[in-house]
Amino acid sequence: MADETSLVQPLSLSAQVAAARSGDLPLQDLIDQTLTRWDAVNPLIRAMLPDPRLRERLSSEAADAAARWPVPSQRPPLYGAMVAVKDIFNVQRMPTRAGSAVPPESFSGREADVVARLREAGALVLGKAVTTEFAYFAPGATANPHHREHTPGGSSSGSAAAVAAGIAPLALGSQTVGSVVRPASFCGVVGFKPSYDRIPTGGTLYYSPSVDTVGYFVQGVADAALVAASVLLGWREGEDAEAPVPRVGIPIGNFLDQAGDDMRAALDEAANRLATAGMTVEEAMTLHDIEDINVRHRNLTTREFAETHQERYDKYGAMFRPQSAQLYEAGLDISAADAEAGRASRIALRQRLHERMDRAGVDVWLAPSAVGPAPHGLHSTGDPAMNLPWTHAGMPVISLPFGDVAGLPLGLSLVGRFGHDETLLGQAAMVEAALAAGG
Amino acid sequence: MADETSLVQPLSLSAQVAAARSGDLPLQDLIDQTLTRWDAVNPLIRAMLPDPRLRERLSSEAADAAARWPVPSQRPPLYGAMVAVKDIFNVQRMPTRAGSAVPPESFSGREADVVARLREAGALVLGKAVTTEFAYFAPGATANPHHREHTPGGSSSGSAAAVAAGIAPLALGSQTVGSVVRPASFCGVVGFKPSYDRIPTGGTLYYSPSVDTVGYFVQGVADAALVAASVLLGWREGEDAEAPVPRVGIPIGNFLDQAGDDMRAALDEAANRLATAGMTVEEAMTLHDIEDINVRHRNLTTREFAETHQERYDKYGAMFRPQSAQLYEAGLDISAADAEAGRASRIALRQRLHERMDRAGVDVWLAPSAVGPAPHGLHSTGDPAMNLPWTHAGMPVISLPFGDVAGLPLGLSLVGRFGHDETLLGQAAMVEAALAAGG
Repeated sequence: MADETSLVQPLSLSAQVAAARSGDLPLQDLIDQTLTRWDAVNPLIRAMLPDPRLRERLSSEAADAAARWPVPSQRPPLYGAMVAVKDIFNVQRMPTRAGSAVPPESFSGREADVVARLREAGALVLGKAVTTEFAYFAPGATANPHHREHTPGGSSSGSAAAVAAGIAPLALGSQTVGSVVRPASFCGVVGFKPSYDRIPTGGTLYYSPSVDTVGYFVQGVADAALVAASVLLGWREGEDAEAPVPRVGIPIGNFLDQAGDDMRAALDEAANRLATAGMTVEEAMTLHDIEDINVRHRNLTTREFAETHQERYDKYGAMFRPQSAQLYEAGLDISAADAEAGRASRIALRQRLHERMDRAGVDVWLAPSAVGPAPHGLHSTGDPAMNLPWTHAGMPVISLPFGDVAGLPLGLSLVGRFGHDETLLGQAAMVEAALAAGG
Repeated sequence: MADETSLVQPLSLSAQVAAARSGDLPLQDLIDQTLTRWDAVNPLIRAMLPDPRLRERLSSEAADAAARWPVPSQRPPLYGAMVAVKDIFNVQRMPTRAGSAVPPESFSGREADVVARLREAGALVLGKAVTTEFAYFAPGATANPHHREHTPGGSSSGSAAAVAAGIAPLALGSQTVGSVVRPASFCGVVGFKPSYDRIPTGGTLYYSPSVDTVGYFVQGVADAALVAASVLLGWREGEDAEAPVPRVGIPIGNFLDQAGDDMRAALDEAANRLATAGMTVEEAMTLHDIEDINVRHRNLTTREFAETHQERYDKYGAMFRPQSAQLYEAGLDISAADAEAGRASRIALRQRLHERMDRAGVDVWLAPSAVGPAPHGLHSTGDPAMNLPWTHAGMPVISLPFGDVAGLPLGLSLVGRFGHDETLLGQAAMVEAALAAGG
């Protein structure tokens, strides 16, 4: 069995794309490199799902891309990018299994819009990545590349682990509570969950359509921005470059009190580094009513989960995993009025957080991406408490790796204003640099 | 949602078969009755797996049986018996899924020998019952009919629950540690695990071929004996009828100390009732080295699990559930010598227990079937500690329901001498009567 430290390997999307676009790295060689890495580490971390036609399918996709864009200078921005796709996104000619024993025909449908956008931008679908069942809590077998006895987080478990292990430089995920930001934190990679509705969700298996947000994993903020230009609806060219140095707010109070000591210490250290780099960093009491927010978010998402899966449950309920069956049943007991209250709460919270940012002079919130490092064991994917209110408000979040506990990474969330994903990405690049410089 | 108490409903195999054999209950009416019950309770307990051709397949099997055995007096002993089959047994024209997201073609093979034997005895395959993945610990969604927030136990989860809920009067299971006896205890039904190798295991998905034992669930000892005559290899007609009144031993010491207070109290009460009925009941210190036995059993079964699943893991490891992947990996680290020591230990323990029975004047051991009632939650199937040494020794065990804790059943195990399953069944009938009489 390989030395565990060798399971973690940074892989730059920008570098991969640059080499492929220029022709320095022919796509066939890129495929060979990628599959060599897959074969070496995937049996140990179980991030990518088996695909009996893997090499032949990739070669065929690569040949199509090379034929379509023969001239290097005319190649699109993600030409040659190897993308791992969470297995709740439909991809043409690949089954969607959604982490479930329910037959794949139950999930079939047109290719996900975001996958089609990535293809148009020149990316190749490397394969499907392990997800918890239906993007909820019943975990797959994926192990954390930093320590195989620890969860990679969920629900986008395989996506986060595949990027951390250097199998893919880019992986799609989705978030209904904390399913991108938490695994990014646990696996030591960058996770970006844009504003609600900034990436189309068509062709994905819904958990809670009023909340579900497509996001992705990469190695750094520059890679996140490179992808954003291709997948964010209404991308505003240049807005990120014009972003002012951010004024950073720490959301102290009942919300932050949920975080463990390791995370609190990392947050303090990060705040110091940002201040050292010349940013204003202020504490601002907020989210005092986090318990109410949690309840309203759970009501909305749990009822919508039951609505989403009703026909499937009637047919295949005995093939659900216990967590999913119990969430489904819980959803049956939540009224339409409670779900509607959850939807209204989303808008109200967003507005309230924006007003709080205005009053406190805050451009981005800096907060833990999880309550601590990845917990031990693969039976649970950890606690999304630190992600819930931002997801509820639909605000964009990018998680940056920062520090570790005994080799297990920690991550910090930067939270921007709803709809201002470009500004958040621009400011995240500054924060990333300041955090690195202070080390 | 139905009243939870209505989920439990005794269904006598003997009565079902008598009505079908005589023709009082035409098979088509029996099918209607059975599917009505299935439809009413299965959505709530998730014991039986979906089958798109259920009614048409059953009708066709019933028509074949009726045509084959037109004369009531010539009908075989299990004519019309509706059997639920744990989904690790192959059944012709039905996929085997083994509680897994791994594609069913990975498990295909000839029909299980025991299924073929039951068909020859006139039984009809009602359907597949939920199993934990690969008959290990990763649970399905089955709920305990006595309380839906509690596990039915495992790995034969759906089999035990289907019998408890009156969907089927007979269900096949298998046991490598405690996968028949524990769910029987949790679900308040009779579970019979014969001596090792008394029921053929051909056509089943192995966990640990040196240990795996086919067993089954019914409502009472008479039903267990009725089935035994058709499925036990080398059935010795009449031996059960000749069984002497058993001398009962209570295996006190380190093994029994693992049981909780509720079970200890039930065991004491049962011992009193048996004594009242005129049986000798003696405590006998045994299994002092239970911790060593546990280790040797785990070594053997875990290594054999890895051997059984090696090809499957290489191909589909990322589709395993975490518990199964981790058991597989643990098995890779166990030496062939340790597994062989486990095999030798089985024979030695059997011999030692027989000698202990001789010295103490014990015909059957009476012991808890689980450490307590079914634990809360569907995420775990409970602790098989009370089953392990008997399975290790390969001795026959029958679990009888006895008492409850707040509506959750308890069960007690009667353990006989290896190979003397007929005697055990005969004596179990006496114990069953004595326990009921003393109430």
